[in-house]
Order: sequence, then C-alpha cells, then structure tokens
Amino acid sequence: MGMIGGGSDAFIGAVHRIAALMDGQIDLVCGAFSSNPQKSKESGKALYLPSERVYGSYKEMIEKEKNLSDEERMDFVSIVTPNHVHFDPARLALENGFHVVLDKPMTFNLDEARKLKKLVDDTGLVFCLTHTYTGYPMVKEARHMISKGELGNVRKVYVEYPQGWLSTRLEQTGNKQADWRTDPKRSGIAGAMGDIGTHAANLAEYVTGSKITKLCADISTFVPGRALDDDGSVLLKFDDGASGILFATQVAAGEENCIKIRVYGEKGGLEWKQDDANSLIFRWLDKPVEIRRTGGNVGYLSSMALHNTRTPAGHPEGYLEAFANLYRNFTLTVRAKMNGEQPKSEWLDFPDAEDGVRGMLFIEKVIESGKSDQKWIEVSDQ
Amino acid sequence: MGMIGGGSDAFIGAVHRIAALMDGQIDLVCGAFSSNPQKSKESGKALYLPSERVYGSYKEMIEKEKNLSDEERMDFVSIVTPNHVHFDPARLALENGFHVVLDKPMTFNLDEARKLKKLVDDTGLVFCLTHTYTGYPMVKEARHMISKGELGNVRKVYVEYPQGWLSTRLEQTGNKQADWRTDPKRSGIAGAMGDIGTHAANLAEYVTGSKITKLCADISTFVPGRALDDDGSVLLKFDDGASGILFATQVAAGEENCIKIRVYGEKGGLEWKQDDANSLIFRWLDKPVEIRRTGGNVGYLSSMALHNTRTPAGHPEGYLEAFANLYRNFTLTVRAKMNGEQPKSEWLDFPDAEDGVRGMLFIEKVIESGKSDQKWIEVSDQ
Amino acid sequence: MGMIGGGSDAFIGAVHRIAALMDGQIDLVCGAFSSNPQKSKESGKALYLPSERVYGSYKEMIEKEKNLSDEERMDFVSIVTPNHVHFDPARLALENGFHVVLDKPMTFNLDEARKLKKLVDDTGLVFCLTHTYTGYPMVKEARHMISKGELGNVRKVYVEYPQGWLSTRLEQTGNKQADWRTDPKRSGIAGAMGDIGTHAANLAEYVTGSKITKLCADISTFVPGRALDDDGSVLLKFDDGASGILFATQVAAGEENCIKIRVYGEKGGLEWKQDDANSLIFRWLDKPVEIRRTGGNVGYLSSMALHNTRTPAGHPEGYLEAFANLYRNFTLTVRAKMNGEQPKSEWLDFPDAEDGVRGMLFIEKVIESGKSDQKWIEVSDQ
Amino acid sequence: MGMIGGGSDAFIGAVHRIAALMDGQIDLVCGAFSSNPQKSKESGKALYLPSERVYGSYKEMIEKEKNLSDEERMDFVSIVTPNHVHFDPARLALENGFHVVLDKPMTFNLDEARKLKKLVDDTGLVFCLTHTYTGYPMVKEARHMISKGELGNVRKVYVEYPQGWLSTRLEQTGNKQADWRTDPKRSGIAGAMGDIGTHAANLAEYVTGSKITKLCADISTFVPGRALDDDGSVLLKFDDGASGILFATQVAAGEENCIKIRVYGEKGGLEWKQDDANSLIFRWLDKPVEIRRTGGNVGYLSSMALHNTRTPAGHPEGYLEAFANLYRNFTLTVRAKMNGEQPKSEWLDFPDAEDGVRGMLFIEKVIESGKSDQKWIEVSDQ
Repeated sequence: MGMIGGGSDAFIGAVHRIAALMDGQIDLVCGAFSSNPQKSKESGKALYLPSERVYGSYKEMIEKEKNLSDEERMDFVSIVTPNHVHFDPARLALENGFHVVLDKPMTFNLDEARKLKKLVDDTGLVFCLTHTYTGYPMVKEARHMISKGELGNVRKVYVEYPQGWLSTRLEQTGNKQADWRTDPKRSGIAGAMGDIGTHAANLAEYVTGSKITKLCADISTFVPGRALDDDGSVLLKFDDGASGILFATQVAAGEENCIKIRVYGEKGGLEWKQDDANSLIFRWLDKPVEIRRTGGNVGYLSSMALHNTRTPAGHPEGYLEAFANLYRNFTLTVRAKMNGEQPKSEWLDFPDAEDGVRGMLFIEKVIESGKSDQKWIEVSDQ
Repeated sequence: MGMIGGGSDAFIGAVHRIAALMDGQIDLVCGAFSSNPQKSKESGKALYLPSERVYGSYKEMIEKEKNLSDEERMDFVSIVTPNHVHFDPARLALENGFHVVLDKPMTFNLDEARKLKKLVDDTGLVFCLTHTYTGYPMVKEARHMISKGELGNVRKVYVEYPQGWLSTRLEQTGNKQADWRTDPKRSGIAGAMGDIGTHAANLAEYVTGSKITKLCADISTFVPGRALDDDGSVLLKFDDGASGILFATQVAAGEENCIKIRVYGEKGGLEWKQDDANSLIFRWLDKPVEIRRTGGNVGYLSSMALHNTRTPAGHPEGYLEAFANLYRNFTLTVRAKMNGEQPKSEWLDFPDAEDGVRGMLFIEKVIESGKSDQKWIEVSDQ
Repeated sequence: MGMIGGGSDAFIGAVHRIAALMDGQIDLVCGAFSSNPQKSKESGKALYLPSERVYGSYKEMIEKEKNLSDEERMDFVSIVTPNHVHFDPARLALENGFHVVLDKPMTFNLDEARKLKKLVDDTGLVFCLTHTYTGYPMVKEARHMISKGELGNVRKVYVEYPQGWLSTRLEQTGNKQADWRTDPKRSGIAGAMGDIGTHAANLAEYVTGSKITKLCADISTFVPGRALDDDGSVLLKFDDGASGILFATQVAAGEENCIKIRVYGEKGGLEWKQDDANSLIFRWLDKPVEIRRTGGNVGYLSSMALHNTRTPAGHPEGYLEAFANLYRNFTLTVRAKMNGEQPKSEWLDFPDAEDGVRGMLFIEKVIESGKSDQKWIEVSDQ
Repeated sequence: MGMIGGGSDAFIGAVHRIAALMDGQIDLVCGAFSSNPQKSKESGKALYLPSERVYGSYKEMIEKEKNLSDEERMDFVSIVTPNHVHFDPARLALENGFHVVLDKPMTFNLDEARKLKKLVDDTGLVFCLTHTYTGYPMVKEARHMISKGELGNVRKVYVEYPQGWLSTRLEQTGNKQADWRTDPKRSGIAGAMGDIGTHAANLAEYVTGSKITKLCADISTFVPGRALDDDGSVLLKFDDGASGILFATQVAAGEENCIKIRVYGEKGGLEWKQDDANSLIFRWLDKPVEIRRTGGNVGYLSSMALHNTRTPAGHPEGYLEAFANLYRNFTLTVRAKMNGEQPKSEWLDFPDAEDGVRGMLFIEKVIESGKSDQKWIEVSDQ
C-alpha cells in the first residue's frame, strides 16, 4: 500500500500503519506523508522506505506509481489526511486504477461524497471507509443476532460517543489533532458531529441494519471562541419504526472514547461498548442476562464474529485489531478481485462508499437541524 | 404512621412499610389499605394491627384518628395509592392537621399539584414526596460535589431510566401494577413519563441544583393497544446554560430498573447508577478516575452522605435504605417541628411539594412536546 | 425480641435491630444493652423502650422476662456482645426457654460451642447464628444450582474475604470494634480468622454443601504489637474431593468488605461477591456467560432465592436485607413451632448451632495449622 | 527475524508474528516452521516467504542464514516450539551469533535453563522470554508505583490465573495445544504450573520487584487419565517479608484467561486483571478509589507505561499489543547494541534469561512441594 498523509506527528497515520501491517498481508511500499516534501521524506525514512518511493505530493505518488511494474507498484492507497484533503487524492487514485482506503468522514461535504461514490461505482474499484468500530467482532455479532431476529422487531436504539478531550481550547495549544478538527476550512461544516457523530450514526445503522430517516438535533459549541460544534444530542427515527437517541460530545470532561450502543427489540436488548469491547451483553424478558465473548475458539459465535477474531477467548483484542479487521477484509476483497474470484461475504463486510455518503448526509442534516426551529428533519439522499 | 393504600398485593405499599419501620423511629399504627373494606381489614390483620385501627376508607381513618388522643393518634399519613387517589386523601390529611408522605407523581394533574402545594404552604405541615433515588447517599454526595463547584460550570446532563417490564401488554394479564399505570383514568395523561420520567427529571434537578427550562420530546407508545406512552426521549435545556438528554422507557426489554445520571462540567464529570448505587464515579480532565464509596466510616464523604448511611463501607445499602432515608429525614423534621426545634439541614433534605409541582409540570410539558411540531417547549410554572 | 449488648456505640447491635425490625414481624420489647447499667438505660431510652424493660444485666433480663405473661414476655433473645460474652447469656436463655439469635463466631472456644449445641439439641429451641452472607438471595441461588448438579461435580472452591480496616493499629485509637477484636481475652485464639475467616468458611460450606476436611494455613500478624492474627491464607480439601483456597485478611489496605466466592465444577463455574450482591455469574464450558439477578418477579429463580427477596429486579437489596433474611426465617420458624406447625424448608434455611460448632472447629484448626510445620491438618469434630 | 516453529495450525506462532510485525520494525525473513519439511514449506509460502528462505529444520536455517550477507541475514530467531524443543535451537542460535526470542517456559527442565542463561551471559547476545503479561502498560505502571513506595511496604500478594479449557480431556480430541501441554515428554514435569503458573509467578515478581523465597503447594490432576497437573494452589513467601497466594488452574470450567494480580502495602493496594487490561485500580486507606488508565496522552502515567502505549486513552490495547511490546523493546535493544549504543532503560524492560531460570526453578519447586508432606519448600537457585 501507499500512504497519503500520516507523517510522523499524526495519530491516525500510525494507527493505519499498525492496522495494515499486523496481519502480514500488507506491506507499506510508498508514501506521500506530508504536503511538506521535506517532512514527507523524513517520515518515509523513519518508516524504512527507500527514498525513491517517498513522494513530495500525492499527485506525484499516483503518477509515478502508476508507471511502475505490476509487481512493484502499490496496489492501493490509504488516505489519512484531514477532511479537506480527502476528495481529491481519492478521486485521483480511483481515476488511476488504485483501490482506496479512506479515513472518515468521507469528504469535506456531501457533494464531494456523492461524486466519489459515483466514481467508485463507475470504476468498480474497492473502497473502504475506516469506520473502525464496525470492525470489532462483537459489533459484528450484534448485527448478526439482530439480523437473525433474536431480539424481535427493534424498538429503541441508543448510541453515544462521549469524549472530553476538547473540554478546553486545546486547538490553541499546538495540538495538531484539535487544530484541524475545529477549523471549518479543513473539517467542514461540523466539528464533533463530523468527527465522532458520524461514527455513532454508522454504528447504529450497521448494528441494526436500518436507516435513519428523521432527526431532531440540539447542537452546541460549549468552549468559547470555537468555530464548530463540540457537542450534539440527536433524536432519531429509523426506517423500520424504531426510534432512538444519538449523542456525541467532545466536552464530556474526563471521558475518553467509550462509544457505546444499546438496541432493544420486542424480546430483549443488547449492549456493546468499546471499554469492554470483547463482551456483548444480551438482556432478555425472561431469561438470565447473557454475555457473549470474543474468541476464536468460541463455538457459539457467528462466522462473522469468528472471522474477525485472532486469539482464543480471554486474550483481549482492542482498537487496533478492530481497525486491522477493516484492512484485512479490504485486502482479502482486493486480492480476490485481482485473482478474478468472488470475495466471501465475510470479506466484503467493511464500510464502503455508500456508508460514506450516508455519513456526509448525516452531517449535513444534523447541522441543519441544529439551526432549525422545525422539530424533525428528513434524512434522505435526494 | 397511618397508611392509605398498600394492601397485600401492592408492591409499593410493602416498600413504604419496610422503609418506614427499618430505623425503629416509626410505628405503623393504623391504615385504610384498600377501597374495599374487607380487603383493608385483611391487610391490617396481616400487619398485626388491632382491628379498630384498620379503616374501611381514608375518610373514615382521618376522621377517627383526628379524634384520638395525642398519644394514640397517628402523626402522619403515608399515601401509596394510584395517582388518581393522591390529591383527595392528601388534601384531607393536611386539612385535618396530619403531615403527609405521598408517593410520586404528586397528583393526577398539574392543577391538583398546585393546589396541594398551596395547602402545604398554608398549613405549614411537613410534606414528603417519595422520589426514592434522591435518598441514596451517593446521589447526595453528587449534589454536594457539584454545589461546591468541583466540576466547574455544568455543561451536560444525561439521565436515563430504562425499564423493560412493559414490553408486552402485561396490563391484560392481571398484573395490578401494570393495570393502573397504563390506564389514563388512574394514571393521568402520562404513562412512562409520569411513572419513571418524573424520577429522572427530579434526579437531574436534584443532583445539578438547576432547573429544566425547555424540552423537546419524542414520546411513543410501542405496545399495540396501550393508551398511554411507554417510552420517551427528551432533549433538555437548564437554567444555568447546561443542556442534556433524559430518556425513560418501559419497553427496553430485559432492562430492570437502572436509573443512571451523568453530569459533566468544565473540569470533570460524575456518574451514578442504581445498579452500583454505593459508588460515585468522578472522571477528571487530568487525573485518575476516582470512585467515592458509601460508608459510615468514610472520612472524605460529605456530612449529607454520611447522615444517610447506616453501615461501614463495603456493606452494600440499596433501594430500601434509600427509601428509608426519605422516611427518616421526614420523621426527624416532623419530630423537630413537634418539639418546636429547628430541623437540621440534613433532615430537611427530602423531596417536597415544590418537587411535586415540578414533576407534574414536567409531565404536562413533555406530553405537550410529544404532540407538538414545535422544537422547544418552555417549562415554566405560570 | 430482647437484645443483649448492642448499646449506642456498637456497630453490630444497630445492624441487628434494623434487620429485625424491617419486615414488621418483630418488635424490640426489652434489652440489656450494656454491662454498664447506666449505659444500658440510656440506650434503651434512645430506642423508645419503657424503662422497666431495660435491664442492667442479661441475667436480670432473662430472670424477669421469664416471669412475664406469655403475651408480654419476649419470645427470643438476640445476643450481640463480644465473643467472650456469647456462651453464658446464650446458655441462660436456652435454659430458661428462650429461643436465641447469636452473633458469630459462636463462642469463645470450641468447647463452649459443643456445649451450647448440645443445649440447643436438648431443649429443642430455635437457634440462629448470624452468618449474614448466607442470607443473600443469590447465595441461596448458588447453593441451589450446585445442589441440583448444574455445575457437575465440584472441583475448585475459591473464597476470599479481604478487609483493610486493621492495616494500622486502630485498636489504640479508641475504636471499640478494633479494640475487642484484637484482644485475646475477648476475641479468643483468633483475630481475623475468627472475625471474618469463619464467615468465608461458612459461605464455602453453605454454597457447596460440602465440608472442609483438611487445611493448611499460613497465619500472620502484620501490624506490629498486635496480639492476634490479622491475616491468613488457607489451602482447603473438601469431603467431596474438591480443593480450594480461603483467604481472609484485615490488612488488605483499601479493601472494604467484599467477601467473594467462586466455585467450579466439571461443567461450569459460578461467582458471587458482596459488592455486586444481586448478581450471580455463571460461566460455562460451551455457552455464553449467564448472570442471574435478584428480583421477586424473576421467573427463573429458585423458590429459595425468591423467598428471600423483597423487591422486583433492579431495586438493589443489600447487607441489611440479607441480615433481615436470617431474622425473618428464624422468626417464621419460631412462630411455626409456637403454633405447632412444621416450618417450611425455606424458613429453616438459616445458620444453626451445627454451623457454629464448625466455625469454632475451623478457628481451632486454622490457628493450629498456622503454628505447625505439618502440611495438612485434619478438620474433624472428634 | 527468522521463526522456529509456528506452522499454520499453531496458535502461538501466529501471535508472535502479529506481535513482531505490528510496529513496522521487524520483517519475517525466514523460518523453519515445522519439523516436517513439507509443512514448513507450506507455512512459509502462506506467509509470502521466498522458498529459499523456508528451511526444513532449525539446524539448516541457522547454518544457512549464518552464511548470508549482513544485509540479508536474519538478525534474530523467534522460537515458538513446544518446551522440549526450546533449549537446542536457542543454544544453536546463540552459539552462531543470533539474538533470541523464546516462548515460555524457558526450557524442558531447570538444568537446561541454567545452561542457556550461561550461554546468554557468555555471548552477550540479547535474549527475551515472552512472559506476555509484563508487556501491558498498566502492569508496568503497577511495578513503577510499587517501586516508588506509593503503597508502602508490601504485605500481601494475590496472583491468579484461572483457565477452563482443559476441564475435559481435550488432548484426546486432536487439539494440538492440549496435546503437547499435557504430555510429560514434551512439556516437562509440569502441566498447568509450567504453562500458566510460571506466568503468574513471573507477574508477581515483576510487579512487586521481590522474589519468592518459599512456597507450599497443593498440586492436582482433576481430569482422569491426564499425566500432568492441571491445577495448583500455592502459598508464597517473598524476600521482603510479604506473603501471598498464587493459583493457576486449567480446570476452572468457563474461565477464559483472566490473569489477575492484587498487591497490598501499608498504605493501599492495587489490582490489575487482563480482562480490564487498560485500567489499574488503586485502593487507599483514606482516599477514594483511583483508576489509572492506559493512554499515550495521559499526563500522570510513568514513562515506562507511556513508552509501551500506542494510542490515546479509550482506544483499548490488548494482548497482542502487550506481546508486541516485548518484541519492540527487544528490537530496540538489539538495534542499539548493533549500533553500539546504550539501550534506554525502557527498552531493556523485557523478560530475560534470569526470569527464565526463575520460572524453571518455580516449576521444579512447586512440583516438589506438591509431592511433599513438608509445609514450606525453599525456592533458591543453588
């Protein structure tokens, strides 16, 4: 793979590399790690890349890699830049025949997302959007159990993503992560709702298999001087008649990153949260609480959960393994396509361009709702 | 004390009796346990009451008790009937000089609540509304810590009350609890929002010391054929600039009764939930997570928490002790008044008529919002 | 009931009273609350007792109560004094026809315990030893599930009782609880092993239904100057072939009172701990983890668990309710006997004189083992 | 690196590879993956190795790699074979100048361990024994806090390692992991005590910084027909005056792999367990409970913890990351040595040959104690 962005001081770039390398299926062969060519070179060197495969810009990288031999050329690009530099490199990669892994949210705005999805559809190339949390085996088990009807018809969905790291004006202290995320020129129209609200919305739709059709949002900026939202609470309606709540905040001081979802149907409910990621709790109307647990040797788990597990029960897998599951499934799919084979359904189970468009739609509508006196806003991609 | 309602098959009557008796400060001396005089007699006998102190109606009880000697006469009434039989016995008791403990919500509608509050104010009698959850020592500690400014200004309040017991149409199976709670003639305009939503709203206002000023509600009835709401999700605004979410549902299948609150300020956040009632979790921007624990021997706790604790740390106290704290504080206040003494501030710390009016206001506004297309509804008692 | 000991500054006396009063089945009618007659009077007054029923000594109480009418006379005594004042008042009560509730451990030494058990057997009176932890509904459920063979043959038993309150020399600071417990003249040959080790041993035998047959103990006194053990670790062998570990310590600084037991059989294991007392966890070889929960409305629980539950699921019951279960079952048994009826098996389920003798035997053997170079010491009452 | 063992159906080989590859610091360049040359070839192919670097035996691998150029040659070997094939390949690697990563326990018996340690000392090569659990950041934080004296003098150490996977005779069902672990010819004199007891002993010594000096063990084989122990309970004495308990069992049916340690000193105690690996709990005599949390952005953590953390707080790291920390620190040390630099203290913090000898000593003594009637057995390497 070749990487765009992810220079030495970028958090998410390092995460992508660990996730990609972990399973021994992917080599990092080239990169354009920074818009500053000097920084790019230094980052490439620290990653043991030969200097001729470290590029000064993503344009240069795509152009030069395209002309390498099949053997040598990168197979796909991984784009880990801020939101305003998602669309163009992804477009260029697709237009030049490279599969794409792209960090979320998909693009700077909904229009770009629609164009990118069209390009994916038109080229037939493989596209993965890194909504990490759907990579957890117990999240997949949750989706499986609901799709099998184990809970009965779904009535309530509660999804939350509390963070506290932006409780102060961190963006003024030199923190790069805070800096671009709070800047409308680089982040887009949304702050917290784009950065983590989209994760929560994607998780809710993935687990339930339903789509959000209406929302009513209370969007706030708590930290004085900040240009974008750092907090939002959203009432939700789903296409299957369920309703729910989504909240995402970056001013829940003291909270780390514990995204959590609860879904209740007629017969029971389930709960998953990242801080206890290897457990999936089921509560029933008339039976003891049940906890399903991650583990490659766990006989009762679905094939979807087992496929995304590396160790026996009791050897905790975490965020990096969930992330690696996206890369592994993407890679298995790419390799199948390259070999002219049909990818297995387990391999195809990673967030795609459609998820990306829905994320951008969520951002647009949730921000619109936050500014509106109208109670319910439709969420539809027309 | 004398009890109105609470016959042999009533859940909450038994709870009130345990709570009242536990501390050896209160004797049950008389009762009108049912509107059916025969049932009342049987219930009284099972409670070892002399038959002459078991009455056929609350009117009879109040009238006859009034004429007993100071020594013998009940000091207060405890009213544990369904909502539509709250106002009249409470009014009668107050008018005849008896202090009152009343189960929540205060009355059948807001108008009754206002009248009752006026009567409490006019008579100067002691009135306690049994919002149980504010009786927990760690809830009091939470209020104390916030009032001291330990969290800084409050930004976010998340309160939830998930139950699952009404996931099916239990009211048609002979379940008395379900029966009246789902009946508009006995429960009032609200089902879940009145039964447990008011607990959640009261907890939020108690812990933060702030008042809800606006709300936006999504109110649902999920179980076909049910006349009242069994579910609600509510966006909240508070008078101190905080915002939040309240949800209360009785169709979260598999959930028991785990009311929970989280509050975040500029410097940190706290979390309390009934399933781990003796712990109060604090998360901070820059320090380890802290857990404060119930215990009469715990040096760092506030006097408010310590006063409401019976055992040393590690001897779990639960729902019945929290409930007993309401009775104990009410009794200490009554006794002080009877002795012409000034009650201590710890004793006065129980839910009162003002809380009751606010609860009925919440019910009225949340149901209004549920039916409205307007986003925000004001919550003010004008 | 009449109480011996339990004056105003005694922790356990207040606990006994709350436990006895809670269910409205028992009245406190008299007491000899202190060996100091003046203190006894004051305590009795604070408890609203008529002064003629507050006695200067237990001898006086038993003698005078014996001569009261059947109606008026106490039915049983509750003895809550330090260990060296267990045998004589219990003996006197039994010899004069009073049923007895006695705090643990049973007596000052094994010989007294055997004599007392013989007296109980000979008089046919009802005797309850307050090993509180067997009063928890989920402990009863654990015993039930094991007795039904749900775990298969039991292989391992791990029971622990960590406390930290004696990590410093608290007995020299005026703390009455610490004072007598660390004094060989009042406590007997054991400190921690008598005070809490016996609880752990009793819990292990109750839950498994098996008897400890051999032990190997490492007994320590960590706090300089202390005369009795404040810590012990014990390897155990049971009569059904299981083995296990018991530890009880009062120098686990920071620990409160979280007694915990885990039992593993051929097919699965269970875990219960006081800090999450309303949950009973089952782990299985080939199924999801299961959590059974306390609650009067929980259909899958055994009659033994349900009988000892007061509230629906999710209304946490704690230490005082567990303690009250001992009193309630004792009282139901006493009343049945007084009425010439056969007590139900659920009522008879409280710790008795046999448990008391086994506790004293455990103390004797565990202290003997602690001083011995021999690996295994037999635990048999010959 | 070159790998010895770890063919396609070996659990621990895959774990080693993920751990080694994750950080982009190590390439797998060659291997002798099986004693069956055909299997070795197939495994190597599946790992994308060129066929000329896949060897039919470890002897062939070491001999041929030795003759490659500095550039091309593997820098170290990773040995992931059953215990009886630890000593010889490690010896051969060291004698031929290769650094060594070796799976635990170190060797088949204590004598081999001593010889291997001497060889490590004599060659000056870098040696890492993969006691995974010391790789967790919160385990390192625990060691750090104790070494700083935050708990005061240590009094009690409780370490446990419950597994249930060998509750039945799995070794007869074709399970390779069970097969060799229960075979004295391949595992050595111990089963559970060697496989996981050594992990527990190592964790206790690592966290406390103290050494076990005496032990008293109850060693059992519960599953009929099994030749080696599947369970053990051990009383411990440490060289600093602390005492404790270690238990390790593979017949705790339903348990997964939750190794856990608790340490108590004069001022407080700490607790860490693998199932909540990113939390480190501190309990204090007179302060709220504290929970320290993993996270690269957590200001209060020690440099030792931070160095071994990859993500910000709330992005759970697990078993594979802990394992990867061993590889990363080993690699940083190797690279420093190759560059003639002094490794940082953080880099040197991985289990070494001395830990390996102590593990084998533990095995020898614990099995000796299990067979002995003598209470205490000395643990000293003379």
